[in-house]
Amino acid sequence: MSRSSINLLEKFTQFSEHWSPRVVAEMNDYQFKLAKIQNEFTWHDHKDTDEVFFVIEGSMTIEFRDGKVDLKAGEMFVVPKGVEHKPYAKDECKIMFIEPRGVTNTGDAGGELTAKSDVWI
Amino acid sequence: MSRSSINLLEKFTQFSEHWSPRVVAEMNDYQFKLAKIQNEFTWHDHKDTDEVFFVIEGSMTIEFRDGKVDLKAGEMFVVPKGVEHKPYAKDECKIMFIEPRGVTNTGDAGGELTAKSDVWI
Repeated sequence: MSRSSINLLEKFTQFSEHWSPRVVAEMNDYQFKLAKIQNEFTWHDHKDTDEVFFVIEGSMTIEFRDGKVDLKAGEMFVVPKGVEHKPYAKDECKIMFIEPRGVTNTGDAGGELTAKSDVWI
Repeated sequence: MSRSSINLLEKFTQFSEHWSPRVVAEMNDYQFKLAKIQNEFTWHDHKDTDEVFFVIEGSMTIEFRDGKVDLKAGEMFVVPKGVEHKPYAKDECKIMFIEPRGVTNTGDAGGELTAKSDVWI
């Protein structure tokens, strides 16, 4: 077992691409992923799982079909399973998100922003 | 569905007791809990689940039978299931930890630091 802490800001220095999640930890069958995001993501949902967003640095908005929630550093939000959402950040925002291993970032929506789901740093 | 962000530092203003976890969010059958900790906790393990520690403010140490890991704000660590550990903080430290709903904070060890497992704020 590793005896090293996982320093999130240090991990963020290891990549620069937007909407390209990196796994930093696993708890049982759940993964903790970091992403740098900017501009609009794809409308999508996750049929079988809730998804947690946690903002580490910056601010973002999660749009829903009937509203939105604004998040800034130190704030989190749980998107319930099956709820369509579209993450958005005007300026670059650093987030951690949590979901079961194997979940695809765009759900069933697909498209060019679909990322590999299991890239570790 | 709630459309409010969960602001962790604001949540921490709502309680002051040490080693007294408060649930702030659920994702599927997992709970996100906040705690203020100081001094030594009880040696214990969780036979059936990993446990994530994430330091929001301050610093803490997780002792193991054969070592330790130091964590400061912005750092996280996953304690694997079945591994005995003892959290410790010299000064008050604010943490978030994540584990399945229903897990007891002291595992099977019991003792006076055992807390109710499902208190929401």
